[in-house]
Amino acid sequence: MENSPATKSERTRRFIIEKAAPVFNKKGIMGTTLSDLTEATGLTKGSIYGNFKDKDEVAIAVFQYHVDNLTAFLTREIDRETAPIAKLFAIPNAYRKLYKTMMAYGGCPILNTAAEADDTHQTLCRLTVEAIEGMKKTIVSLIRSGQTQGEIGHETDPETIADIIIALIEGGTLLSKATGKDTYMMRCLDHMDGLIHNIKATR
Amino acid sequence: MENSPATKSERTRRFIIEKAAPVFNKKGIMGTTLSDLTEATGLTKGSIYGNFKDKDEVAIAVFQYHVDNLTAFLTREIDRETAPIAKLFAIPNAYRKLYKTMMAYGGCPILNTAAEADDTHQTLCRLTVEAIEGMKKTIVSLIRSGQTQGEIGHETDPETIADIIIALIEGGTLLSKATGKDTYMMRCLDHMDGLIHNIKATR
Repeated sequence: MENSPATKSERTRRFIIEKAAPVFNKKGIMGTTLSDLTEATGLTKGSIYGNFKDKDEVAIAVFQYHVDNLTAFLTREIDRETAPIAKLFAIPNAYRKLYKTMMAYGGCPILNTAAEADDTHQTLCRLTVEAIEGMKKTIVSLIRSGQTQGEIGHETDPETIADIIIALIEGGTLLSKATGKDTYMMRCLDHMDGLIHNIKATR
Repeated sequence: MENSPATKSERTRRFIIEKAAPVFNKKGIMGTTLSDLTEATGLTKGSIYGNFKDKDEVAIAVFQYHVDNLTAFLTREIDRETAPIAKLFAIPNAYRKLYKTMMAYGGCPILNTAAEADDTHQTLCRLTVEAIEGMKKTIVSLIRSGQTQGEIGHETDPETIADIIIALIEGGTLLSKATGKDTYMMRCLDHMDGLIHNIKATR
């Protein structure tokens, strides 16, 4: 089974995606050339195009790979906690852990792809929106659980808090990545802690 | 004087910059082709390259044009007010006024350029850092004036507030631009109002 043609092709696709991922994240979709992909993978042009229709198909698979990794990491960090408020605090903490790796990797892939694709690439634009709204849904549902369990006051609007949390993550990442100064991101994460602390119900 | 060669050349450069600006902002630097520039300006390739060494030089001039326009607009809005706190509130208000135009224009040029250029284009990367730090300097100095005048408490850290304000602007713009939903940006601006309100000294 393991050496069946389908499996081998899947492995090659996966290999190409993993090697292409940081290249796309740093150089952008338009900025990544076929030579960048052959260089990053050590494969020939024919081998890459034997596995993907075109550069766009690689870019889409790479974006999905980024989102899957980020989602898996965040889910793991959130799932370590039991109470909704503690799960919310796990989000800024997850970004503190992720920070150095993400910066070395070229910044947040959702941000980079959203900034590049929003006016030019329909499929990637749709996928970035799905990634943003998926993250929002997770935060909103944590806040709602907190409200049901009496940890969070009912005056809190879950959507508002979720939007601000995601904006702080993306804004902080952008500013730290551009300037090379971690203070932007760290101050945004500390502010997020304060925000989560403030929505705690006073009992 | 007005028809001297230098003036005409300056006018042509300015014309190219104005027409190229929204194209670069929407398609990115890598994504903008020479054909896009000849189409947007109605000029020939020769005429464009008679005024600019290469596409990079157009991109740099366009970025400077974006920053100059944004700075002029923000300065005008801030200068309408006299008290430091009112000047700070003028920032979210300025973005409320600017919102629709900025979205139609392809989003925030600083954000778009930072996301694209940070790993690839040294000069533009340096210029985005200057733009971010210029904005930060303005906000920090408004908060310091407020502290000197007793409007803002001395427990407030001007740098922290400035970083969060800029992150909320960039994060909110990115999310609203990507999703097409103005709520992300509007909630960030409302949160900024709350933040400014909270640093007011209680007398």
